[in-house]
Amino acid sequence: MKTLKLALMGFGNCGRAFAEMLMQKQPDIIERYNTEVLVSVITTRSRGNLVNPGGINLARALEELKEKGRFKSDVSSKGAQEIIETEDYDVLVEMTPLNIFTAEPATTYIRTAFARGRHVISANKGPVAWHYRELRNEAQDKGLCFFHETVVMDGAPVFNLVENTLKLAKVTEISGILNSTTNFILEELARGCKYDDIISRGREMGFIEEDSAMDIEGYDAAGKITALANVLMDADLTPEMVDRKGIEDITIEDIRQADARGKVIKLICRCALENGKAKAYVRPEEIDKADLLASINSTTSIVSITTDLMKKTSIVEHEPEIEQTAYGVFGDVLRVIENE
Amino acid sequence: MKTLKLALMGFGNCGRAFAEMLMQKQPDIIERYNTEVLVSVITTRSRGNLVNPGGINLARALEELKEKGRFKSDVSSKGAQEIIETEDYDVLVEMTPLNIFTAEPATTYIRTAFARGRHVISANKGPVAWHYRELRNEAQDKGLCFFHETVVMDGAPVFNLVENTLKLAKVTEISGILNSTTNFILEELARGCKYDDIISRGREMGFIEEDSAMDIEGYDAAGKITALANVLMDADLTPEMVDRKGIEDITIEDIRQADARGKVIKLICRCALENGKAKAYVRPEEIDKADLLASINSTTSIVSITTDLMKKTSIVEHEPEIEQTAYGVFGDVLRVIENE
Repeated sequence: MKTLKLALMGFGNCGRAFAEMLMQKQPDIIERYNTEVLVSVITTRSRGNLVNPGGINLARALEELKEKGRFKSDVSSKGAQEIIETEDYDVLVEMTPLNIFTAEPATTYIRTAFARGRHVISANKGPVAWHYRELRNEAQDKGLCFFHETVVMDGAPVFNLVENTLKLAKVTEISGILNSTTNFILEELARGCKYDDIISRGREMGFIEEDSAMDIEGYDAAGKITALANVLMDADLTPEMVDRKGIEDITIEDIRQADARGKVIKLICRCALENGKAKAYVRPEEIDKADLLASINSTTSIVSITTDLMKKTSIVEHEPEIEQTAYGVFGDVLRVIENE
Repeated sequence: MKTLKLALMGFGNCGRAFAEMLMQKQPDIIERYNTEVLVSVITTRSRGNLVNPGGINLARALEELKEKGRFKSDVSSKGAQEIIETEDYDVLVEMTPLNIFTAEPATTYIRTAFARGRHVISANKGPVAWHYRELRNEAQDKGLCFFHETVVMDGAPVFNLVENTLKLAKVTEISGILNSTTNFILEELARGCKYDDIISRGREMGFIEEDSAMDIEGYDAAGKITALANVLMDADLTPEMVDRKGIEDITIEDIRQADARGKVIKLICRCALENGKAKAYVRPEEIDKADLLASINSTTSIVSITTDLMKKTSIVEHEPEIEQTAYGVFGDVLRVIENE
């Protein structure tokens, strides 16, 4: 039996859900791939770092975190950067909190892993939005995997859909509704709810961040359409190059007027070729109520991909929870095993 | 450079569109896979059969068909069955007209190809709906490919989506709107059009068959949900086991009453586990106008797949034309190359 060792950078909700999924599906992985997947490294921002080349006991680590809020076993005195420079792992799994403006520390971690000849899975949109071409080329040159399905629409196949099911088809346009926070806010405003109430309820439900401006002003959506365009259209964009407008200026009156015309307002992302060059935007648009996009509500999201051979194909992720984010990472781990 | 030889059984709209696509994308196939794809056999019901082990000139064959309605070059005196028993090919591509009750001659052709150790691509839902488990097992035992993406939703990834992008996820439910004829009829009835006018317009547009009962009474949809259930849930169903009701009894009054309740009527296919056993139905259902399914109009179709790890994911094919059917076969050819 083969062994694959993971270094989990970040162990928040997604990392913990991934650990649970790995424990649950380990027998299936062994049966299908004759490979045991171990976690040899876990790093966190404030709860300590773990190292165990023989495999961290995930059940115990989760238990310690739950009971004490900190790890007790396998604790390393090294910092995260030193760990990934020196410790033993086959795949770096990047799940650190996102800084959409600097893409750090994620990008440095990824470069470090590639320099050591390790595969990388990133759940973090920063590196794919800011440095995709460089990172992809480095992975290709070294024969390493660089997978990032989770960056857009959690584990729902988007990058993987094009690579594995739309082979030799050339992507000419990508569009979608990719930010649940703004989707939820627009929907609740239309129902007559007050802005501040909506935000606090979204926070309780766990999908509106403390700093909601990233979502509301369209930065998150811009990062996602950039990631899609870079990977699927080889666009070489950065989020700054996206013509971005958020929903901050949308009023209840705008929504009511749209409604009277049989429309709803949605924050739409789109990237299409203009004179052979990929141009991307994020902006609120009025959508006919009979249109597919009008039915994408709450945390549900959609990506539509137009290609030369298959015209328009759309993929919808329905009301994901944290397990669906974890599955993005889990599926990428399986793809690394297949490519090993 | 490697060579892959195809036997095209059937050369109707789909076969011809596939031949065009193959000619157009041959350079890309060679570049990506270092493989030249040749067509060594073409059989038709009434226009003659072609055999050329060195590769049929597709441009000439298409031209002859267009000009004379029959082939002139490479014509064989053998019948289709004799050809696939004796002539040279690596992959049988089954595109003969469907008999949904007997699944013939498609199933016999497929068994013949497997017996000779040849891969099979089927665009025909009969064999997958009636004999999937037997055919899959035979292919597996002999290490052969048996691909059939085109059977449901043309080239839009459905079977391939689950196999290649939802790895290790267990399918617990499948639902969808899979028959465009009934979808179109219900939509036009709701607009106030007369039944007979709708049928004749659909025939002009090319997507309502001469024998429209197969669609209207739900046989086509039953075949598709059976194919999905057999492949994705290992259900071992046949179309006869589907609880089937078509749209033949839906009146304009039913549609109006539904409309007054904020609903539309759609022909829905579904298969779910009941006490661990897959149960499938096809029937008209009232769908809330705000629901995703209500926006699936005309020739657009949708499949929703629920799994243990990814909850519900849907794939939508928007207004396909014959090229999108051909892409289903084309994508399967690329997968055979990758598996060779």
